[in-house]
Amino acid sequence: MKGSNKMNISVNELNKHVGEEIVFQGFIDAIRDKKWVMFVILRDATGKVQMTIEKSEEANAPLLEIMSNTKVESTIKVTGKVVENEAVKLGGIEIIPTNIEITSNAEDLPFDFNNLDGVNIDTRMDYKWIDMRNPRNTLVRQVESCITEGMREFLYKNNFTEIHSPKLIGAASESGSDVFEVKYFDRKAYLAQSPQFYKQMALAGGLDKVFEVGPVFRAENSNTNRHATEFTGFDLEFAYINSYEDVMSLEEDLLIAGLTKVKERYGDKIKEVFGTEVVIPTKPFPRIKLKDLYQELHDRYNFDIPKEDVGDMNAEAEKLTFKLAQEKYNSEFMFVVDYAATKRPFYHMRDENGKLQGYDLIWRGTEITSGAQREHRYVELCKNAKEKGLGKDVEFYLQFFKYGCPPHGGFGIGLDRLVMLLLGLSGIKETQFLFRGPNRLNP
Amino acid sequence: MKGSNKMNISVNELNKHVGEEIVFQGFIDAIRDKKWVMFVILRDATGKVQMTIEKSEEANAPLLEIMSNTKVESTIKVTGKVVENEAVKLGGIEIIPTNIEITSNAEDLPFDFNNLDGVNIDTRMDYKWIDMRNPRNTLVRQVESCITEGMREFLYKNNFTEIHSPKLIGAASESGSDVFEVKYFDRKAYLAQSPQFYKQMALAGGLDKVFEVGPVFRAENSNTNRHATEFTGFDLEFAYINSYEDVMSLEEDLLIAGLTKVKERYGDKIKEVFGTEVVIPTKPFPRIKLKDLYQELHDRYNFDIPKEDVGDMNAEAEKLTFKLAQEKYNSEFMFVVDYAATKRPFYHMRDENGKLQGYDLIWRGTEITSGAQREHRYVELCKNAKEKGLGKDVEFYLQFFKYGCPPHGGFGIGLDRLVMLLLGLSGIKETQFLFRGPNRLNP
Repeated sequence: MKGSNKMNISVNELNKHVGEEIVFQGFIDAIRDKKWVMFVILRDATGKVQMTIEKSEEANAPLLEIMSNTKVESTIKVTGKVVENEAVKLGGIEIIPTNIEITSNAEDLPFDFNNLDGVNIDTRMDYKWIDMRNPRNTLVRQVESCITEGMREFLYKNNFTEIHSPKLIGAASESGSDVFEVKYFDRKAYLAQSPQFYKQMALAGGLDKVFEVGPVFRAENSNTNRHATEFTGFDLEFAYINSYEDVMSLEEDLLIAGLTKVKERYGDKIKEVFGTEVVIPTKPFPRIKLKDLYQELHDRYNFDIPKEDVGDMNAEAEKLTFKLAQEKYNSEFMFVVDYAATKRPFYHMRDENGKLQGYDLIWRGTEITSGAQREHRYVELCKNAKEKGLGKDVEFYLQFFKYGCPPHGGFGIGLDRLVMLLLGLSGIKETQFLFRGPNRLNP
Repeated sequence: MKGSNKMNISVNELNKHVGEEIVFQGFIDAIRDKKWVMFVILRDATGKVQMTIEKSEEANAPLLEIMSNTKVESTIKVTGKVVENEAVKLGGIEIIPTNIEITSNAEDLPFDFNNLDGVNIDTRMDYKWIDMRNPRNTLVRQVESCITEGMREFLYKNNFTEIHSPKLIGAASESGSDVFEVKYFDRKAYLAQSPQFYKQMALAGGLDKVFEVGPVFRAENSNTNRHATEFTGFDLEFAYINSYEDVMSLEEDLLIAGLTKVKERYGDKIKEVFGTEVVIPTKPFPRIKLKDLYQELHDRYNFDIPKEDVGDMNAEAEKLTFKLAQEKYNSEFMFVVDYAATKRPFYHMRDENGKLQGYDLIWRGTEITSGAQREHRYVELCKNAKEKGLGKDVEFYLQFFKYGCPPHGGFGIGLDRLVMLLLGLSGIKETQFLFRGPNRLNP
C-alpha cells in the first residue's frame, strides 16, 4: 500500500485538527446520496465522523465516481480537511476530502450489525467480526482491556510478578471430572482448569507475589449462556499474609483500581450505551458471616437456603445477598465468610477450630471470586487432601509444600464474568471475544 | 495464622527502617551456629539479610531453642529491630529478633539450589520450586515479568486493546501438522498454534490495534533445548498502516520500551548475576535486504547460504548476521527484508511486483520475530492461499476479509526466547517457568 505517509488521525482526535489537512482511515459506515451532496459516515474504533462531498464542485467528480461504486463497510483512506460545521450532528465537524482510496471492498453483509435485535445469537457468533463492529460490542472489548489494564497496573505497582503457567498438564488436577484430554504424542495430557497449583508453586519457589491472566478450560457439557468451556482467568496469589483478611483487603484495592480506570476512561460512554453506572466502591466492602446472612435473608426476604446447600450459597441466595448489600450497606459488593469446610477445596486453610479461612465475593447478584488463605503446611495439607478422598492426583501438588512454603493466600476472578456484570450484559456469549461452548468452536 | 499485624518489610526496604521494630518474613537461607552467636541468613524475593542472635542474652534462649530445631529452607516470621552494623557483609544491616515463629517446616532438600552446576536439568525441573529459589532463577522470572510490563505499558499508552483469543479451535489452522488434538465431547478440537488469525479478525471487527500475551502450542516431537511444546506468545496487530515499515517502526519502539524498563529496574543485577549488559537500542535498527546480506556474509565470513535455504535464513546465517550487525552497524539488532514469497505464509502481503512486504528481526544471533504487512484484500488473499495449496482449512479465515478489512500488519515475539537472549541463558529449559516438551508434562 503506497500513499501519503501522514499519520492517521482517529475520530476522537479530529477536533484537535480543525482547519488542517489530515489523513483518516476507517470503515464506510453509511452513504447518504442526496441531490446536491453526498454524505459519507466514516467509522473507526473511537467513533464516527461525516465526510461531505459537494456535487457542484467539479474536482469532486472522481471522488463521487469512486464512492458510487463502493459498498458500505468497505474500508477507506481519505485525505482531506477538517472543517467545523455546527449543522453536523456528529461532533460538529466534517471532513472535506481531496483524495479517496478504497483500501478494501466489502460484499453485502449477512445482517445489519447496527440493529441486532432480531439477529440470532448464533448467527452473530458465526460472523463475530461483523457483530463486533456494532459500537456497543466494540466497547465491550475496550472495557475488558481497560479493567485488566487497571488491575494489572495496581499489581505491578505492588511488586507482583506476572507468571505464565502451563496449560498442558500431566495429570487431571483438582477435580478429575470436567477436564479436557489432549493427545500428547504417545500419551495423554490435560488442559489446566486453573493456575491455582502453579501460582502456589511459584510462592514455594520464592516469588512472594504472583499473578496470571490466561485461559482456563472446563469440559462442562452445559449449554447455557453462563457457561463457557474456555474463558480468561485473572488469578493471583501472595505470600507472608497474616490472615484471609489480607486477601480480601487486596481484592478490594484491586477492584477499586480496575473500576476507577474504567470509569475515568469509559464511564460516560458506558452510561450512554449500556445505561449502566460504573460505581467505584469504598473500602472496606461489607462482610457477613454465612450464618448471619441466612438469618438476614430469612428475616428480610423470607428465603431459606435448601438443605443440600447449607454451608454454602446458591444462585437465589446470591441475588438476595446483592439486595441486602444495597439495602443495608449501600454497597454493590459483599464478602461472605464462614463457609463450611466440607463445601470448599482441601487447600483452603481452616483454623484450629476447623473454621474455614476463605470467602466469596458477591457483586451485583453473582459470585465473582472465591478467595482464601491457603493451607501451606505440608502435614495439615496432606490431612485435608486425605479427608476429601484425594489421593494420587494431588500427590505432585503436595510435594510443593514439603521443603518450606510461606503462609499465603489468593483468589481468581473470571474476567468475562466481571465484564458481563460491569456492563449488565445478558450472558457470556455477549461478552466473550469468541465464545467457546460444547457446540461452539468456530470461528 | 495469628500474630503481629504489622506490615512485612522486604529485604530491599529494610535500610529505610534502621532503628525500627519491624516484621520480616522469608525463607531461612542458612544457619551459622557459632560459639557465642547464631547467624541466620534470611531470604525473600528481593534479597538476603542477616539475623543475629547473641547467645549470652538470656532472653534469646527460646529463640535459640526454636532455631536449633529448625532446618534451612523452613519459612519464618521474625519480629525484631533493624540495626546498622558495618561488619555485616549483607548490606551493612542486621535484624536483632525479639520474636520468632516458624511458619512452615522444610524437610532435607533433594539438592543444593545454590550450587546447580552438577545438578541434572531434569532433576531441577522435577523440583522447579526448589530450583527457582536460586536468586539467579528468581531473577529470570522477575525479568520476564518486567519486560512484559514495559512492552504492555507502551501498547496501552498507544491505545492498543488487549484481547484473549480462544486456544480451543475447530480446525487445525495454518499448518495442519504440529497441532495438538483435543477430545472435545463427541468431536475433536485443536490447540491454537498462534493467535494470528484472531488478531486479524479483531481488526476486521473494527478494533484498530490489538495485542495478546498468551500460550501457544506446537506439537513438535523434538527434544532440544530450543523447542517447547507450549510457550508464551507476545502478539500484536494494528490497522491503517502504510507499509511494513510502520510495523518495524512499532517493533523498535516496543522493544526499546521493554528493554528500558528492564535496564532501569534490573540492569545492575543482571550484569552482576549473568554478566550480561542490557543494551537499549536506538532507532532505526539497521535494515538489510536478504540479497545484500548474502553478499556481505560471503564477502566477510566466506559464508554461502545452502541451496535449499535460498530466499530464507538458517541458524548459521542468523549467527553471522548478528556479527555483521555488531561490526558494521554497532547494533545488536538487524531487520532482514526481501524474503522470497515462497518461503513465507500466504497471508504476508506481496507488492505489485510480487515482493514480500515482511521482515525478520535478528537479535544476538537468533530470529526473534517475523513481521509483515498482511494481505487484507479478499481476492488477493484467496489467490495467495490457493497458490500455497491451502484449501478447506483456511476457508473460515478467508471469510474475515470478505466484508471489508483495513490494511494492517503485525508480528509475534516468543517471550521465552526473548528472555533467554536477554539474559544469555543456555536454553529454553532454563528460561521457562515450567518447561513443556515431548517428555515433560510435570510438575
